[in-house]
Amino acid sequence: MNALLTDFYQLTMAAGYFEAGKQHDHATFELFARRLPSVRQHLVVAGLQQAVEYLEGLRFRAEEIAWLRSLPQFAKVREEFWAYLRDFRFTGAVFAMPEGTLAYANEPLLSVRAPLIEAQLVETFLLATIGFQTMIASAAARIVEAANGRSVVEFGTRRAHSPQAGLYAARAAYIGGCIGTSNTLAGFQFGIPVFGTAAHSWVLSFADEREAFARLQRLLGDRCVYLIDTHDTLAGARQAAALGRPLWGVRLDSGDLVTLSREVRQILDQAGLTDAKIMATNELDEAKIHAVVAAGAPIDSFGVGTALATSSDAPSLGMVYKLVEISTGGQRRDVAKHSPEKQTVPGAKQVFRYDGLDVIARADECKPLPGECQALLQPVMMNGERLGDLPMRRMDRFPLPQPQWTRLSDSLEALGQ
Amino acid sequence: MNALLTDFYQLTMAAGYFEAGKQHDHATFELFARRLPSVRQHLVVAGLQQAVEYLEGLRFRAEEIAWLRSLPQFAKVREEFWAYLRDFRFTGAVFAMPEGTLAYANEPLLSVRAPLIEAQLVETFLLATIGFQTMIASAAARIVEAANGRSVVEFGTRRAHSPQAGLYAARAAYIGGCIGTSNTLAGFQFGIPVFGTAAHSWVLSFADEREAFARLQRLLGDRCVYLIDTHDTLAGARQAAALGRPLWGVRLDSGDLVTLSREVRQILDQAGLTDAKIMATNELDEAKIHAVVAAGAPIDSFGVGTALATSSDAPSLGMVYKLVEISTGGQRRDVAKHSPEKQTVPGAKQVFRYDGLDVIARADECKPLPGECQALLQPVMMNGERLGDLPMRRMDRFPLPQPQWTRLSDSLEALGQ
Repeated sequence: MNALLTDFYQLTMAAGYFEAGKQHDHATFELFARRLPSVRQHLVVAGLQQAVEYLEGLRFRAEEIAWLRSLPQFAKVREEFWAYLRDFRFTGAVFAMPEGTLAYANEPLLSVRAPLIEAQLVETFLLATIGFQTMIASAAARIVEAANGRSVVEFGTRRAHSPQAGLYAARAAYIGGCIGTSNTLAGFQFGIPVFGTAAHSWVLSFADEREAFARLQRLLGDRCVYLIDTHDTLAGARQAAALGRPLWGVRLDSGDLVTLSREVRQILDQAGLTDAKIMATNELDEAKIHAVVAAGAPIDSFGVGTALATSSDAPSLGMVYKLVEISTGGQRRDVAKHSPEKQTVPGAKQVFRYDGLDVIARADECKPLPGECQALLQPVMMNGERLGDLPMRRMDRFPLPQPQWTRLSDSLEALGQ
Repeated sequence: MNALLTDFYQLTMAAGYFEAGKQHDHATFELFARRLPSVRQHLVVAGLQQAVEYLEGLRFRAEEIAWLRSLPQFAKVREEFWAYLRDFRFTGAVFAMPEGTLAYANEPLLSVRAPLIEAQLVETFLLATIGFQTMIASAAARIVEAANGRSVVEFGTRRAHSPQAGLYAARAAYIGGCIGTSNTLAGFQFGIPVFGTAAHSWVLSFADEREAFARLQRLLGDRCVYLIDTHDTLAGARQAAALGRPLWGVRLDSGDLVTLSREVRQILDQAGLTDAKIMATNELDEAKIHAVVAAGAPIDSFGVGTALATSSDAPSLGMVYKLVEISTGGQRRDVAKHSPEKQTVPGAKQVFRYDGLDVIARADECKPLPGECQALLQPVMMNGERLGDLPMRRMDRFPLPQPQWTRLSDSLEALGQ
């Protein structure tokens, strides 16, 4: 069902390119963020696997073509275009930064080199896939950094923007440094560790808290986490302590986490459960976690929902996908748009990462400066086929380095602009 | 694949309820927003159709059960539970506000009455589906109101939180008052009008703007919309005007929309194209549209992307799904949690809408006050089966009434609390 999951203008342009005899034109498009939200210093690339799966599987089904043909916008399109759509495959090449790579504004995360129509049609899906997962992985990296060594679990599916967003948010959060997720499907489909034990409804469904806790302990043993705030947090902690081992620990989900975690720690310790852990949830975000950690609260693990699954401090990323090069009849042209505040830099690019410096150069330059460096855009697909495995790759550096890379303004010099 | 698209704790609780002999307990859960974001006065309900489809189709596949069995959390679960999951169906009842209904904080949008395990398992998916679409429909209603009679088209799929979020955002925006979407799949799947003609890459792919415009005109005739800012907006407008009819109009995508729309209007009028329309795009949101409309800019139509598809001014809604009633062995109990700032109101509820007043009452009260009123929670499913068609229902009032309904604090009196 994914071929139609694109902006309608991609399809009118496809028909128009075809009618204009441009079906053999070849194009390069680049996907990048024009600028980062003020609360982000860098991006963590994610979503490449789903992007490649989309490109590999892209087909128009007969009923989709029949529906398109019925639209007045396509009244003047010749039969040949529908035959073209029927046989449509993505046959191009893709170069991309591996998932988990740190990236900055104006650096292409991915470039598509393909027949113009193919490269154009895939814009919307690629942006929604890589843009979203990159946004979440980038948010996760900051939240994990704020937790300063304590573990962070992604708990946000219920607040994600659709069920699929919950699934991919779980994946991206794991790439960005979370230890796991509450999303069960993410465990099944991607092998991400899944976490979660019980909700308030569990406690309320039993006649009393003691029975609810005892039943959970019997089921989960040393993986048991008691949610202790349904009635009263400290009474809940004493109830949990009274049951003794086995347990993993307790979860706080309301109130002042700093004070409560200290009091709960004391209750657990006095019961000899010094190895029992304390997990905290409740609309946590980077700032709240930072404050709780700075206050020295004895919290071992954070469960983060909305702030992770929606990147609530920066819920969109200005990701764009721009035509930078086109070949018509063998004639190559670099292109750019000049709209105010939306200018693009013409020509296909490569990003070279030196120690402490990124240089955005032309794709056909090899190594613009002396010294060790790495070309970040690596070939991922050729002739519409994947070049190798695309394992889910988690962020490779932690703690994060301070951003010392050049911005585009510096890099433009390397481009001779 | 949707059965596992749930928080893992729903499954550990399911196993725990089963092991505790509670598989015949019956529960009522209610889905509501605890409080609205400061930038929303009301919600527009959306997502019910997808919620019902999920409940109807909910099954655990053999490989999903096999994977669950392999997890250490389920080591102590008896064989009977896996047989239960194998035969799992949603067999409960659902009461819900129809899509397009206006709703307020603390009013249940939907309630599920089902065996405890079934009602519990579906929480995550229902929240992600109804919460998201309701959030977008609510954002759309405000943006459409700001446009004050000018049409608004949803253009946000590329910035949505995953491709599926783009599809459902298109649907929800239509429910909230948009006239259509750029999302082609939303047109195919939901019959929503689709819009869009060409991007900057279209213009750049031709040797000059004139050829790009002429080709588009030939393809689209009186549906042709020229994107005129690739090089220079006013030159683009003159180019469009020179081609004359047929055309629908032009699109502005950068610069000062108020000034440019006046200058472009003049160019079109001087060419005798007084019926040609002007569409504006470029990171528009409610506030920008309000300002442009207040300035009297001659803009006929707005295309809104990020602000609609991510509800960027309020990118999450504190939607929750809470156990309010449970029956064990025929004994019914109203239940509530008492966690600070997260208290819930016990007992199954109904929302009665009077002229200018909503009363939240017990579900078994009939009509708590005299006068004409409507019970907003209507039966949608019984015994796991849909009671009738669930047409996509658009918001039924426009312009929006001022909110004059009671808040929960008032309604609690009707509940005798």
